[in-house]
Amino acid sequence: MAADSASAPPEQPSGAESTQNITPWDVQGGADGKIDYDRLCRQFGCSRLSDSHIERVERLTGMKPHPLLRRGVFFSHRDFEAILDAHEQGKPWYLYTGRGPSSEALHLGHLVPFMFTKWLQDAFKVPLVIQLTDDEKFLWRDLELAESERLAHENIKDIIACGFDVNKTFIFTDFKYRSGHFNRNITSISRLVTFNSIRAIFGLKGEDCIGKIAFPATQAAPAFPTSFPHMFGQRKDIRCLIPCAIDQDPYFRMTRDVAPKLGFHKCSLIMSRFFPALQGESGKMNASDPNSAIFVTDSAKQIKNKLNKYALTGGQDTKELQIKHGANLEVDVPWKYLNFFLDDDAELAEIGKRYSEGDESMMSGHVKKRLAEVLAEIVLRHQEARKNVTDAVVDSFTSPRDMTSCLHH
Amino acid sequence: MAADSASAPPEQPSGAESTQNITPWDVQGGADGKIDYDRLCRQFGCSRLSDSHIERVERLTGMKPHPLLRRGVFFSHRDFEAILDAHEQGKPWYLYTGRGPSSEALHLGHLVPFMFTKWLQDAFKVPLVIQLTDDEKFLWRDLELAESERLAHENIKDIIACGFDVNKTFIFTDFKYRSGHFNRNITSISRLVTFNSIRAIFGLKGEDCIGKIAFPATQAAPAFPTSFPHMFGQRKDIRCLIPCAIDQDPYFRMTRDVAPKLGFHKCSLIMSRFFPALQGESGKMNASDPNSAIFVTDSAKQIKNKLNKYALTGGQDTKELQIKHGANLEVDVPWKYLNFFLDDDAELAEIGKRYSEGDESMMSGHVKKRLAEVLAEIVLRHQEARKNVTDAVVDSFTSPRDMTSCLHH
Repeated sequence: MAADSASAPPEQPSGAESTQNITPWDVQGGADGKIDYDRLCRQFGCSRLSDSHIERVERLTGMKPHPLLRRGVFFSHRDFEAILDAHEQGKPWYLYTGRGPSSEALHLGHLVPFMFTKWLQDAFKVPLVIQLTDDEKFLWRDLELAESERLAHENIKDIIACGFDVNKTFIFTDFKYRSGHFNRNITSISRLVTFNSIRAIFGLKGEDCIGKIAFPATQAAPAFPTSFPHMFGQRKDIRCLIPCAIDQDPYFRMTRDVAPKLGFHKCSLIMSRFFPALQGESGKMNASDPNSAIFVTDSAKQIKNKLNKYALTGGQDTKELQIKHGANLEVDVPWKYLNFFLDDDAELAEIGKRYSEGDESMMSGHVKKRLAEVLAEIVLRHQEARKNVTDAVVDSFTSPRDMTSCLHH
Repeated sequence: MAADSASAPPEQPSGAESTQNITPWDVQGGADGKIDYDRLCRQFGCSRLSDSHIERVERLTGMKPHPLLRRGVFFSHRDFEAILDAHEQGKPWYLYTGRGPSSEALHLGHLVPFMFTKWLQDAFKVPLVIQLTDDEKFLWRDLELAESERLAHENIKDIIACGFDVNKTFIFTDFKYRSGHFNRNITSISRLVTFNSIRAIFGLKGEDCIGKIAFPATQAAPAFPTSFPHMFGQRKDIRCLIPCAIDQDPYFRMTRDVAPKLGFHKCSLIMSRFFPALQGESGKMNASDPNSAIFVTDSAKQIKNKLNKYALTGGQDTKELQIKHGANLEVDVPWKYLNFFLDDDAELAEIGKRYSEGDESMMSGHVKKRLAEVLAEIVLRHQEARKNVTDAVVDSFTSPRDMTSCLHH
């Protein structure tokens, strides 16, 4: 069914596939619960990343591509070449990513785009803006405005703990930053997008509040460099690359439509698959279910227990069957997590080989144990880093200070 | 046709009346071009001001009510008693008015709400906020954003020239002021209003841009005191009175619906009729037609010429007929203008009496001559005052400085 050929006819939804429904607020897999990413790419009209993109990243940065890139977690893009071309030609560009602050404790899935974005910033030495859409969460959820701002403040601490370069990174919340040129860009975008478009792109309806209907302009505006005069002055020619999960694509399709009408480049995108829940790959994790995910606040022991208790295994039911058939890596969540977080390619390959072939020295218990070590290291390192993120450190990232030198390498 | 009775059945549009259509962006009279204000009041659901309101204003302020009030130009209200009650009980309240900066030169019709608002501020000694909706004009007109901001800046000079008290008056443009608590209130309002409501109240459609659809929340927010923390801190209990032309009522109907859900009082309104064009009372003037109105930039000679050349007269065609029948004050524009701008009640009554009775000492030429004197005095005084409105003076009104003492009398 999956056809990468560009000449394939437009797909008609049928059978199991037709139930797949991905929006920025909801991820529903097909009848089998799985996401068909090929189908999603065709439906959204974005492209697959190829080996040549990854090789080019390596050539331009002199760094081995991040595991999330070389293992296909970030698998899709729009106009990524334009960014690589600009970089090659010495033209400035910047990164933009973000998060809707819906919960206090982040899980590992929340960290994925930030870990990858940090790597991109280090590798390309470019400025970065990070938007916390506290207004979005206030509009969509049953949440007090002040609570939404508090969650954003807490989330910023976790984001900073990922290790971004303070000299090149501006983190902002919509409620605090909306003003001036950022607000002017939001208004300019909102003049070019009709309610009918919003309905078609996001599925919003007449019963939805005008805050929701207008919101997409707020997520679009950071893709335009003049939203950050303290970083880029009034330069309109600076390109923007957005690392995000693929469910955010609708926002940036809209943004790309509007960009040339306002004299900006279309933003480029590099997009990831969804990080699977412990219970299996049927969509996003639920931050309100502590057993659905590993949280950055978990202890080593909690991690170990959760993996043992809740992680969907692809291993067989008995030792005998496992030795005979080997594990099904397609559904094995610990294996998938290792693919996200275990840096060592050789070790990963060895684990995959032995586990799938039924080697008795690599049963599901061994895989979970190794994963528990890997995750505990990441999570405990994160907890240590977060301890140092005082309110003063938050201020140093969030104050709109003079950052005009951030474009220099 | 006009029925003031509160027990009158809901009116069915029929005949000439059914063509009357009043929105914040368009004023269409009935088939005869006239506005039926009684019908408008019933349709909008607002009330008529009564003599007892006016007497109460006089009693509370110790000042003779402004001609625009005692002659029924400001003729309609919502919850005006709540403001008078609050004032009587020594509770604080504030005034809120505004303008969409659609043209550089203001005409006399534009001045009317500001002249009346200044009188209210002087009489009640209350704080005042004035909003310039440069974002609205940018969204609705074929106008560059920077041009909309420039027009707002020019309009602010004319508004300041009306003589507001700098210690109690904060003037702001949406593009410059939107941020912080004002923006938070806008977002909170936009969470409570659906697109369907906006369509019903304002007639906006799916083809309209999301900027227009979301805009009403921006005009609503200044009716909530926490939009101005530098004036009112975070006090939610301060009432707001909005003097405006009646076409703005839809915005504030929406605002009043939302207010209690956010813990605010419903704003009160005091609303005026439309100022007639020189060519007659068929709606609002057109600022792009220099012959449709007297502008604040006109010279005494221009005023005289415009009145003689373009003002619709209710006088008869010949001297003989005028002496025989007298003038029809119902349609006579110079007479209407005198009602707006001639302070002296006795002189006004005398002019009206003689002119309508055909006294040959008060022909239409005499009325126009007297009006030209009255208007020239107002316009030249305005021009003198505006000369002193430097950019520094604009800053003194528009900077969000500490004004927390503005509530003290």
